[in-house]
Amino acid sequence: MSAAQADLNRRYVLRERPAGDFQPNVLQREAEPIPEPVAGQALVRNRYLSLDPSNRIWMGEGESYMPPVKLGEVMRGLGVGEVVASRTRKYPVGARVLGLLGWQDYALISPTDAMVPLVLPRYVPAPMTKMLGALGVTGLTAYFGMLDIGRPKRGETVVVSAAAGAVGSIAGQIAKLRGARVVGIAGSAEKCAWLTGELGFDAAICRRDGDWRPQLADACPEGVDVDFENVGGEIMEAVFERLNHHARVVLCGLISGYGADGRAAGSPNVSNLVMRRIRVQGFNVIDYLPRFPVATLHMGVLILLGRLRERHTLVVGLDAAPAALVDMFHGRNIGKLLVQIDGTP
Amino acid sequence: MSAAQADLNRRYVLRERPAGDFQPNVLQREAEPIPEPVAGQALVRNRYLSLDPSNRIWMGEGESYMPPVKLGEVMRGLGVGEVVASRTRKYPVGARVLGLLGWQDYALISPTDAMVPLVLPRYVPAPMTKMLGALGVTGLTAYFGMLDIGRPKRGETVVVSAAAGAVGSIAGQIAKLRGARVVGIAGSAEKCAWLTGELGFDAAICRRDGDWRPQLADACPEGVDVDFENVGGEIMEAVFERLNHHARVVLCGLISGYGADGRAAGSPNVSNLVMRRIRVQGFNVIDYLPRFPVATLHMGVLILLGRLRERHTLVVGLDAAPAALVDMFHGRNIGKLLVQIDGTP
Repeated sequence: MSAAQADLNRRYVLRERPAGDFQPNVLQREAEPIPEPVAGQALVRNRYLSLDPSNRIWMGEGESYMPPVKLGEVMRGLGVGEVVASRTRKYPVGARVLGLLGWQDYALISPTDAMVPLVLPRYVPAPMTKMLGALGVTGLTAYFGMLDIGRPKRGETVVVSAAAGAVGSIAGQIAKLRGARVVGIAGSAEKCAWLTGELGFDAAICRRDGDWRPQLADACPEGVDVDFENVGGEIMEAVFERLNHHARVVLCGLISGYGADGRAAGSPNVSNLVMRRIRVQGFNVIDYLPRFPVATLHMGVLILLGRLRERHTLVVGLDAAPAALVDMFHGRNIGKLLVQIDGTP
Repeated sequence: MSAAQADLNRRYVLRERPAGDFQPNVLQREAEPIPEPVAGQALVRNRYLSLDPSNRIWMGEGESYMPPVKLGEVMRGLGVGEVVASRTRKYPVGARVLGLLGWQDYALISPTDAMVPLVLPRYVPAPMTKMLGALGVTGLTAYFGMLDIGRPKRGETVVVSAAAGAVGSIAGQIAKLRGARVVGIAGSAEKCAWLTGELGFDAAICRRDGDWRPQLADACPEGVDVDFENVGGEIMEAVFERLNHHARVVLCGLISGYGADGRAAGSPNVSNLVMRRIRVQGFNVIDYLPRFPVATLHMGVLILLGRLRERHTLVVGLDAAPAALVDMFHGRNIGKLLVQIDGTP
């Protein structure tokens, strides 16, 4: 059922906090009349919703870079949509916006929102989906994480975990463009084939293989200079053991620990960090906001030139979102996982 | 008995590798005829020997930034001395040299040694002991660790562990000079009184107090922006829990773990590192060799101006060195621990 037909706003609210892994029953589907903007607000028809590992973080009360979603509130999610009614000049009708639009058909936005929704420039010819992928926050996370923190040099070895994911697949390609040797760790043979076949990774290791550890050793005969870490846990620990002197660890995410509200995401050998003079750095792309315009331009050029490829897993219908998020934590998507909000699953 | 009287070279060689904490019986005292330099070598009369936590690392086979001392070899140690015989123009008789002279009365040195001994410039009026303390490698470790990696800003809170030690006491003062609020963690009330009374630390916490954790919380009401880490283990973990967003951790040393060949030196909460965007960086001063001259000049000026104070614990006689090293691991020295080689303990 599409919301437009029913003149209702479908929305998923957080009913309870997940204990452990995400389960769809912590979200409750509701339908309310489509809200009307008051002065200073605009109404957005949401088109695409981004599903990300951070969704699980936001549901919990563990420490995060943003406050948790309150119980009874619409589930937080990054999305793109079009302004369909407006009482603010900042967001005119017809404008395409990117922001935390939430798991719903319609969002009320305002220039005073904590995370101010961005108006997408009209001169950017990219489809909306790109703005949630390589040309959006996902791509910029890979960009700043790899270039600012990882800083791979020509000939160095870079390992990317969750390499077939939205961020990892871009991060690895950026390292290749910098002349590094790139090894991806991913969750299936299909993903590994995509990494080495289409994206140009030098090697890819399936973490479900019984011998992934010796495979990792074989793939990194000269050790690891940059670890772009998306996973944590035993995979991170195994990569840490192979870090070279002066290696850099980009702590981008620790998806293996999110089911435990962020704890138990691995214990690196601190002694090695001293002896090998390693830098381990947590980061979040929101700290790079002032540099988004130039970085987006840079990424846009790389995409136009065909130097950066991306892949989406597109799920149709907002009602398919909860199950798709479960699938993501089981590693079933390749590339960016997006929900096309309007449609029947 | 002084070696000069007996015309013998006393030396301590590594007889076996310590299992766990350092015990003097892993070293064996020997006496050999004073060696004679061959072409390209110089003979140094050692004057002062530096005792450092790294001595324990060098005795073990755990990973290190230098190869372990071989069994049967003279124990490695940084020292200063005077050239008394020479067959190389690089080290003329009378020159004062700084290098890995070892636990012995006399050392043969050569410009081709792995760690090339430095000739101390004649125009530096500092006594030899200063060259092993604030004006030497110890001081430079504090200098580069705090300024290059910690980078404290005015008003930020800096915690220094082993704060009354050789490096910690200098590191804390450098942070004060940068306008930071400095909290030291040390092993006795006497040390704490020295830190706050003479060195100007804003607070000092005795880690042997039963309530050191709440004391740490009270001393850092606005969290911790820089952790200059010399200890590891539970002290490091407690400081990590209080790190602010964008905090920096200078991994200088992990003395609490050295008895276990570097393992078990603590497990930081990696999830916090991501969420708070923290940088953890291992470092070793030897990577900064090209910048030693300017940094030494800078430190020298600060010392001359009375802006940096240091304290030595001077032990008399090479034969007192093994027991003094045990004492150091029990935290019994204040400031830099030095052995005046010639003399009777």
